Amino acid sequence: MKRNLARLCVLFGFVLACAGVATARQAEPLASWNDGASKQAITRFVKEVSTAGGTGFVEPAERIAVFDNDGTLWSEQPMYFQLAFALDRVKALAPQHPEWKQEQPFKAVLEGDLKTVLAGGEHALLELVMATHAGNTAEEFAQTVKDWLDSAKHPKTGRPYTDMVYQPMLELLAYLRANGFKTYIVSGGGIEFMRPWAERVYGIPPEQVIGSSIKTEYELRDGEPALVRLPEINFIDDKAGKPVGINQHIGRRPIAAFGNSDGDLQMLQWTTAGDGARFALLVHHTDAEREWAYDGNSSIGRLDKALDEAYVEGWTVVDMKKDWKVIYPFERP
Amino acid sequence: MKRNLARLCVLFGFVLACAGVATARQAEPLASWNDGASKQAITRFVKEVSTAGGTGFVEPAERIAVFDNDGTLWSEQPMYFQLAFALDRVKALAPQHPEWKQEQPFKAVLEGDLKTVLAGGEHALLELVMATHAGNTAEEFAQTVKDWLDSAKHPKTGRPYTDMVYQPMLELLAYLRANGFKTYIVSGGGIEFMRPWAERVYGIPPEQVIGSSIKTEYELRDGEPALVRLPEINFIDDKAGKPVGINQHIGRRPIAAFGNSDGDLQMLQWTTAGDGARFALLVHHTDAEREWAYDGNSSIGRLDKALDEAYVEGWTVVDMKKDWKVIYPFERP
Repeated sequence: MKRNLARLCVLFGFVLACAGVATARQAEPLASWNDGASKQAITRFVKEVSTAGGTGFVEPAERIAVFDNDGTLWSEQPMYFQLAFALDRVKALAPQHPEWKQEQPFKAVLEGDLKTVLAGGEHALLELVMATHAGNTAEEFAQTVKDWLDSAKHPKTGRPYTDMVYQPMLELLAYLRANGFKTYIVSGGGIEFMRPWAERVYGIPPEQVIGSSIKTEYELRDGEPALVRLPEINFIDDKAGKPVGINQHIGRRPIAAFGNSDGDLQMLQWTTAGDGARFALLVHHTDAEREWAYDGNSSIGRLDKALDEAYVEGWTVVDMKKDWKVIYPFERP
Repeated sequence: MKRNLARLCVLFGFVLACAGVATARQAEPLASWNDGASKQAITRFVKEVSTAGGTGFVEPAERIAVFDNDGTLWSEQPMYFQLAFALDRVKALAPQHPEWKQEQPFKAVLEGDLKTVLAGGEHALLELVMATHAGNTAEEFAQTVKDWLDSAKHPKTGRPYTDMVYQPMLELLAYLRANGFKTYIVSGGGIEFMRPWAERVYGIPPEQVIGSSIKTEYELRDGEPALVRLPEINFIDDKAGKPVGINQHIGRRPIAAFGNSDGDLQMLQWTTAGDGARFALLVHHTDAEREWAYDGNSSIGRLDKALDEAYVEGWTVVDMKKDWKVIYPFERP
């Protein structure tokens, strides 16, 4: 039976999907989740929507699950990993921009003065993104991201950034897919920053990644078509932008949404306001020892209003310290 | 074996995909295509990319095929069907807009004077779209489109517009999907105009429909989340916009592209400029008797530069009169 299944999987090209199913059958699903209310709420919901003939049954095509990325699928401290990328790019590009030695926020970046960079607020960060994410083609940018991930190391763990994904959330993604869900990323981060590695790391293909974007323009360069990235914001996929981005890309309302900050509030509202069985979950960063502990007072991943609403609405709130046996894959026994 | 397959399909939730496979096994693929160069080019390409171990093999995940809609999957004469929808909406909404009796282009629409409407050019058409496509929620608009399709009849055939899809293209969509392709619509038409019926008619789910759009805004209406449609252009998915829309939504370069007009030229260029096996096809409207005959001189679906480039590049050009046994599903014997 198992060999037949494998053959059928290959035959019909469902290689990835079937691999996911096989993994889920072999291993205990959600193995890194402690037994408790969070894990129970997840499995109860999944059983409810996937039990044919049950009152909560949802057709597989409508089993859409959306995940924030920063702070929900991987860490976001001491700064968003994409910001670390932008800072490294400023340093790499500095020889071509001698003027940056005198101009903020570039001067502060080159001097390693993160405090001044952050004091510049959103405007300074946007300037950094424009200067480091535009001017190349879509394919060149993807390669730059991959090269950076191959060499960059996180300042606290000394590990590649893509090692710092949450093992329990990887298991949750696999568990949902094994139960017929289509899993999407819906992040305030850059869509083109996530796509080059989301499939390898999360099993989420590029067409299921939604994020913020700059404008691109199609042009012929020496007769060769190219998509050139422009220093102009196209879409900010955060807060009220998340339901808009979901509607634009998916055209269906999700039945399950996973986030960790106030930037995810509208996505969770939009998801849970639909008819039938719905699920919303917030990852609460409570583990100062194994990860970081922060919520309402943090400028990164602030969790305040969404936490209040979670308690009122009965959304699932994951206590990382209590609910997760391990945080990262490299901690597994 | 067949029963086992069916059981596995249900078991793993691949209901739609497996149904497609089953259909392709039962019926002769591309049955409405006459034997000839076009059909041979299609089957040769599909065999090339799907033969494991062959030099042209492409992983299923990368088998992305993009289809224009108007004039490629369904008819577009005597006017784009979405324009017929907009004109009907003007008439339906007129009682709430007494001022339209005096204001162009609404006055001309209400008087049935299509010539004056079209003489207003792009600006007049945009005004009509804004007045008839905005101001409601995404869900209300989808219902309006469905209601219209249930009652509206095409002026020439007297049939519902969704009957006027091309039978050979339906077979082509099914054939590609049966061979591991993911099929997308990439149309200048409205994304929210196509999504309510594309799955039923073409087997293409909402998340695989890319099109032009107006802006939407997330808001709470009496505490209920809603996506409200604004009278402001968000994105025009035509000409150089098509590769941009593809990159934004899919994040992969397609390996096969299907169109019928100069609006599809850049999409075909972008697709064929990638490495490995590539396929581009233009539907040439050559059948004045069974459909319409037009190309370089038509304001709707103008096919001029793209046809020149097709001959230079060796793209497949479908001669509707010669290549297709029937045009519409209702003509099948």
